[in-house]
Amino acid sequence: MASVFETPQFEAFVKYGALSLAKMLNMSLLTGVVRMAKGSFANKEDYKSSGRLSPDELKAKLATPDPFLERIRRCHLNDMENIPPFILTGLFFVLAANPTLDSCNWHFRIFLASRILHSICYILALPQPSRLLCFTVGFVTTCSMLLRAIAAVW
Amino acid sequence: MASVFETPQFEAFVKYGALSLAKMLNMSLLTGVVRMAKGSFANKEDYKSSGRLSPDELKAKLATPDPFLERIRRCHLNDMENIPPFILTGLFFVLAANPTLDSCNWHFRIFLASRILHSICYILALPQPSRLLCFTVGFVTTCSMLLRAIAAVW
Amino acid sequence: MASVFETPQFEAFVKYGALSLAKMLNMSLLTGVVRMAKGSFANKEDYKSSGRLSPDELKAKLATPDPFLERIRRCHLNDMENIPPFILTGLFFVLAANPTLDSCNWHFRIFLASRILHSICYILALPQPSRLLCFTVGFVTTCSMLLRAIAAVW
Repeated sequence: MASVFETPQFEAFVKYGALSLAKMLNMSLLTGVVRMAKGSFANKEDYKSSGRLSPDELKAKLATPDPFLERIRRCHLNDMENIPPFILTGLFFVLAANPTLDSCNWHFRIFLASRILHSICYILALPQPSRLLCFTVGFVTTCSMLLRAIAAVW
Repeated sequence: MASVFETPQFEAFVKYGALSLAKMLNMSLLTGVVRMAKGSFANKEDYKSSGRLSPDELKAKLATPDPFLERIRRCHLNDMENIPPFILTGLFFVLAANPTLDSCNWHFRIFLASRILHSICYILALPQPSRLLCFTVGFVTTCSMLLRAIAAVW
Repeated sequence: MASVFETPQFEAFVKYGALSLAKMLNMSLLTGVVRMAKGSFANKEDYKSSGRLSPDELKAKLATPDPFLERIRRCHLNDMENIPPFILTGLFFVLAANPTLDSCNWHFRIFLASRILHSICYILALPQPSRLLCFTVGFVTTCSMLLRAIAAVW
């Protein structure tokens, strides 16, 4: 008897779930790179040269983070609001809603693509409604799986 | 042989886990609605009329987000601090602690109710300790499941 | 036939996943304690004595949160960026990558230790690169499991 973890649906879930997490974890790396490049940090101990900065200079630097860095942070936060819920929803969807492999693949692929494009729109500050559109596609995909899972156990 | 995913405990987990996620995802919708209603956005490209705003006006708008919007954001962040941990804890609880169906149902129902009431208290700015009480009930429910799961595998 | 949930690998996952969540949930408690101790809150209804504060005093208090509290919040946010992804990755790793028990135990232990030490470095403001090092060890551990899971289903 094949366990649920050996079904192609579960394999698709692991594949796209892991890729979504990898996409989100990359935001941490990007934050680190931009912090270094801009010399903008959130903590006094992060300023290597803090000994050479006067207390007032340090205070001013901590109070005015770089605007591009803040943009990266908002983009990361948006991932955190959407990617873990997607993965938890995907787990419910695969285990409870008995979806076809095609249904799984397309939900997962559309979500992943929408989140990658969302970050590109966000980071490059592309004109709206490009970012809103990407967000909405990913959000609706998650809702679609969530409703299927709720319907299956109601 | 019934798989663990066909037990009523797992069904209860999927049901209340999915409803908790739906509650949390609604905060994104609410944020969007309030942003539109208040005309308060976090990015310059989100201001449709940004062409008509002087750079100083735009800067001032970005620097002073609407207080009610900030309240919604704090409420959403509190959900993010509590709902994904609840679902992951629920997974450990159901799979490892061998709980009765009643124990599952009551843990899950109390948690979901506490989070819905928490958001109502937060958004309406009801006098304390109403919000603190809601938070505490949900938090203790999660801790109760977490301790049962840890005890089961220790 | 032993189900995957009765393997020692899955038990190790539940144990260290639950301990990681417990570590993260403690940040909420710590935030509460520091808010009380410092009298620094994010909402007007949280000031018990708000009736005795003038509107200007209240506004000033809300606009200038305590710096130590902000540090705790950043530490909590860093946990939220890393611990749920670790647990979701661990789930993929255990279910899809067929790891040895030793591989599970060492990935999970190193991650948990790195996050506890990260919080100590953050809260005590220890000189860099102590905090960066702790972050990096936990991050690399998660990436290692994620790559194993992706490789297993590719």
